[in-house]
Amino acid sequence: MSKKNNQDKLLIFALGGVGEIGKNMYVIQYGNDIVVVDAGLKFPEEDMLGIDIVIPDITYLTENRDKVRGILITHGHEDHIGGLPYVLKHLNVPIYGTKLTLGLIEGKLKEAGLLGETKRILINADTEVQLGSMKASFFRTNHSIPDSVGVCLDTPEGLVVHTGDFKFDHTPVNNQYADLQRMAGIGARGVLALLSDSTNAERAGFTPSESMIGVELEDIFRKATQRVVVATFASNVHRIQQVVNAAIATKRKIAVVGRSMVNVVSVASELGYLNIPEGTIIEPEEINKMAADRVAVLSTGSQGEPMSALTRMARSTHRKVDILPGDTVIIAATPIPGNERYVGRTVDELFRLGANVIYGPGSVSGVHVSGHGSQEELKLMLNLIRPKYFIPIHGEYRMLRQHALLGESVGIERENIFVIDNGDTVEFQNGVARKGSKVPAGNVLIDGLGVGDVGNIVLRDRKLLSQDGILVVVVTLSKQDGAILSGPDIISRGFVYVRESEGLLEEANRIVTSTLHKLMNDKVNEWASLKTNVKDALGRFLYEQTRRRPMILPIIMEV
Amino acid sequence: MSKKNNQDKLLIFALGGVGEIGKNMYVIQYGNDIVVVDAGLKFPEEDMLGIDIVIPDITYLTENRDKVRGILITHGHEDHIGGLPYVLKHLNVPIYGTKLTLGLIEGKLKEAGLLGETKRILINADTEVQLGSMKASFFRTNHSIPDSVGVCLDTPEGLVVHTGDFKFDHTPVNNQYADLQRMAGIGARGVLALLSDSTNAERAGFTPSESMIGVELEDIFRKATQRVVVATFASNVHRIQQVVNAAIATKRKIAVVGRSMVNVVSVASELGYLNIPEGTIIEPEEINKMAADRVAVLSTGSQGEPMSALTRMARSTHRKVDILPGDTVIIAATPIPGNERYVGRTVDELFRLGANVIYGPGSVSGVHVSGHGSQEELKLMLNLIRPKYFIPIHGEYRMLRQHALLGESVGIERENIFVIDNGDTVEFQNGVARKGSKVPAGNVLIDGLGVGDVGNIVLRDRKLLSQDGILVVVVTLSKQDGAILSGPDIISRGFVYVRESEGLLEEANRIVTSTLHKLMNDKVNEWASLKTNVKDALGRFLYEQTRRRPMILPIIMEV
Repeated sequence: MSKKNNQDKLLIFALGGVGEIGKNMYVIQYGNDIVVVDAGLKFPEEDMLGIDIVIPDITYLTENRDKVRGILITHGHEDHIGGLPYVLKHLNVPIYGTKLTLGLIEGKLKEAGLLGETKRILINADTEVQLGSMKASFFRTNHSIPDSVGVCLDTPEGLVVHTGDFKFDHTPVNNQYADLQRMAGIGARGVLALLSDSTNAERAGFTPSESMIGVELEDIFRKATQRVVVATFASNVHRIQQVVNAAIATKRKIAVVGRSMVNVVSVASELGYLNIPEGTIIEPEEINKMAADRVAVLSTGSQGEPMSALTRMARSTHRKVDILPGDTVIIAATPIPGNERYVGRTVDELFRLGANVIYGPGSVSGVHVSGHGSQEELKLMLNLIRPKYFIPIHGEYRMLRQHALLGESVGIERENIFVIDNGDTVEFQNGVARKGSKVPAGNVLIDGLGVGDVGNIVLRDRKLLSQDGILVVVVTLSKQDGAILSGPDIISRGFVYVRESEGLLEEANRIVTSTLHKLMNDKVNEWASLKTNVKDALGRFLYEQTRRRPMILPIIMEV
Repeated sequence: MSKKNNQDKLLIFALGGVGEIGKNMYVIQYGNDIVVVDAGLKFPEEDMLGIDIVIPDITYLTENRDKVRGILITHGHEDHIGGLPYVLKHLNVPIYGTKLTLGLIEGKLKEAGLLGETKRILINADTEVQLGSMKASFFRTNHSIPDSVGVCLDTPEGLVVHTGDFKFDHTPVNNQYADLQRMAGIGARGVLALLSDSTNAERAGFTPSESMIGVELEDIFRKATQRVVVATFASNVHRIQQVVNAAIATKRKIAVVGRSMVNVVSVASELGYLNIPEGTIIEPEEINKMAADRVAVLSTGSQGEPMSALTRMARSTHRKVDILPGDTVIIAATPIPGNERYVGRTVDELFRLGANVIYGPGSVSGVHVSGHGSQEELKLMLNLIRPKYFIPIHGEYRMLRQHALLGESVGIERENIFVIDNGDTVEFQNGVARKGSKVPAGNVLIDGLGVGDVGNIVLRDRKLLSQDGILVVVVTLSKQDGAILSGPDIISRGFVYVRESEGLLEEANRIVTSTLHKLMNDKVNEWASLKTNVKDALGRFLYEQTRRRPMILPIIMEV
């Protein structure tokens, strides 16, 4: 049935990445051919208690598994590749990526035991890939990781362009220039629909070039009289290269700390994306043997993550690196929304250790620029590609809306701009687009080994438990006559500290006992009503006394 | 004893407000006379689960209650007055404040039933107050609430100046100019120690004048073709006045919504701090009877607070105000760190309703400026007062450190600058300062009616419960022979959803049963070891199966 409905139509939709930051996954379907772009994860929102990561619901893809021709990966960031180990478990299809992107993916697949069975196809900016009735080609973009590409999909309905994440950096660190000519060429052919990155759609102007950082870093390195520690995103290979350059220019050796930093430095060096002369890298153990002004440390922890290397240094619990008074610490990143307090705490602790800390928004610190294009760059992309239809992607709803306004400002008709939610389809037929029906889409929550087994009820309970804790009320009744044989015992966790609240809990005990006796006198002996009555009476009492509403869990045993 | 030690010495310390934002409370003691400046609250940090507010530990003050001469209040913000209802319960001392400050405090004391018994003394910028051996005078400052003052304390050791919160606004909305002459005069007399506001010590330059907002607001009001909704801090009376002015200039009536907004508008109008012509305010019920371009709404909710008026409008659950497509919503505030996601969500929802939303940092939106001075203003204050010693206050550690650097930059000796933690004392004797001993200081957590009864154990339990929930394991044993009479029953809350995890829980049940049987065979029957063994065996099993560590609560009943 779905076959007939979609025949001769082009469908575009997101399974993740719109109305949110992260978890990117876009689907382009023509007839019986499905092409997927990216398979990312996102980090849990603050109300997803205990959740480790979130991936897209891929029900639509597993239900149409025979049609999926492959997954094209635009670049190697977690929000574009992090869902792959889960997706590929349910959907064994080929993945296409550039050299560094595949390099980073392979590490993940190895860990997940999926490396052998996954077909991985290396692409570059000149590759063309036939995917059923569609043909994919690619164009180089600038972003905060090398080897990022946009996708151009030649479909029977017309060209569809997906930018991936991008900025326009006219002086890129690795000389991988954005391919303006190819983008303009695509635009000249006539583009049906553009899907473009909205992450910085709220920011006016241009995002500065990554190269600006190098100048600033070298300056700081030169002035530092002792060690320099630089924390940045492990995946920002350009930034890492500039740290390496600054260290070399100031005759410092570099120690690399933090699991993901060690991993990326190793993968990127091996594949030729980092140029680190022999003898530059030292083991962290060697730091203390060297003069302080001959050492630099490259570290994870730029987001103040509790277990990261920089956080441990700041708390003096890192096994190998101490921060000494007079050391310089550079946090070459801006806090991701939600992480401000963690980063602030790390900065405080570093200051307390006597370090000179360079931190704050890039405009203040001078050591961070965004990897995403600001409004003028987004308009440049729109004007290079000149699409008939425009679908802003990669961003919270407000960012998509701001991007839509930018689209209007460069002349795209308002009714040709689709601000969509995950699962909303846009249908194209004979060059005309309209909103189609919805497909299943949503969050799959991962907690430990559990994929999708934590739902709303569990999250609601965790939320309740986190606010006022739990009181467990246990009582053993006689099977014969319903008499209380043991209890009621009341156990509190996260509600009040028992030793300081004995009176309260004793009174609670009396209330439970008298409630039970009253019910028995009234011959009420179904467990359900016993439990409800105990819960209500106790809840009322505790709220009156404390204005708190702990979860109350009555347990009745019968012997 | 403490009497002798402190005699002839001046002591300065913070009970709250340094190394943190909020909960401001500073103590200046000379011999047997203690003067307190401010008594604020702060909002809980993200690891203080279930906590409503946090106030300072005032053990030092209650132990020295006979010496406390009074509490001077610099202005009417929660982080300076919010602790009063708790503090005054334990310490019945006079409070001193300007007219609006006392007006706002009185509402609080009334709610707490403390109004009658609290001596409240009205001050203005010309008042002098003798407090034992010390004499307090005041100077007008600019801040985001009218009637803010700094304090000059004439002590036998010399002058001590406390700035309160301040900026230098050369075009203040209410013509309450900062009293530069008095500050300069104090500086000319020679100042021993300055305690100065560090909130914006990380920001370069000058903070713009509040008056800038008025121009922008009127422009937005004029362009709006339908309703305008403005959300801002209820206490920002200047901002409210400018919203009123913009409404009048564009012939709109104003509906006021949100409990604290209604309260402040009423108190500030009554006391003459808001100038709202008769007939300008309408009831929210009248909105729908009026033309959309004749209406403005003044609302709480600028921080995206879940229960606030704007949040309810955004979710279409406000009883009286709907947001219609084409309405303009102005969020005239910057998110306080930690609130970014809430505000973002509100903006998203408003956009979804079709509103035109003006939001973002003040530099982008044009409708917000800070109430705290930036680096150039902090230097101006330092140069007006020209203190011998400098104690940066009001701020996280990093802000105090930045402020200390500013102090050095204007010529204060590094060793004369004290960056302190709450409870650290600075002692002054014969014009010389040094670090003194510590006094008790810390956080008192308020949860519902409980003040200080939630401690680390309870918080740790809440944290654990929030991550992976709880499993309660109940079993009834025979008193005679230790045989299992009933159970084990396993109840899960916030761990897994039972219906989807029957197999797991059945297996868990078997493990508990076999653990108990094994222990009984081994004649282990103390409850403590039974519980520990069940906990360990079950915890191990669950971690292996799920990689989660729920709290496990074994309960053994005996009949």
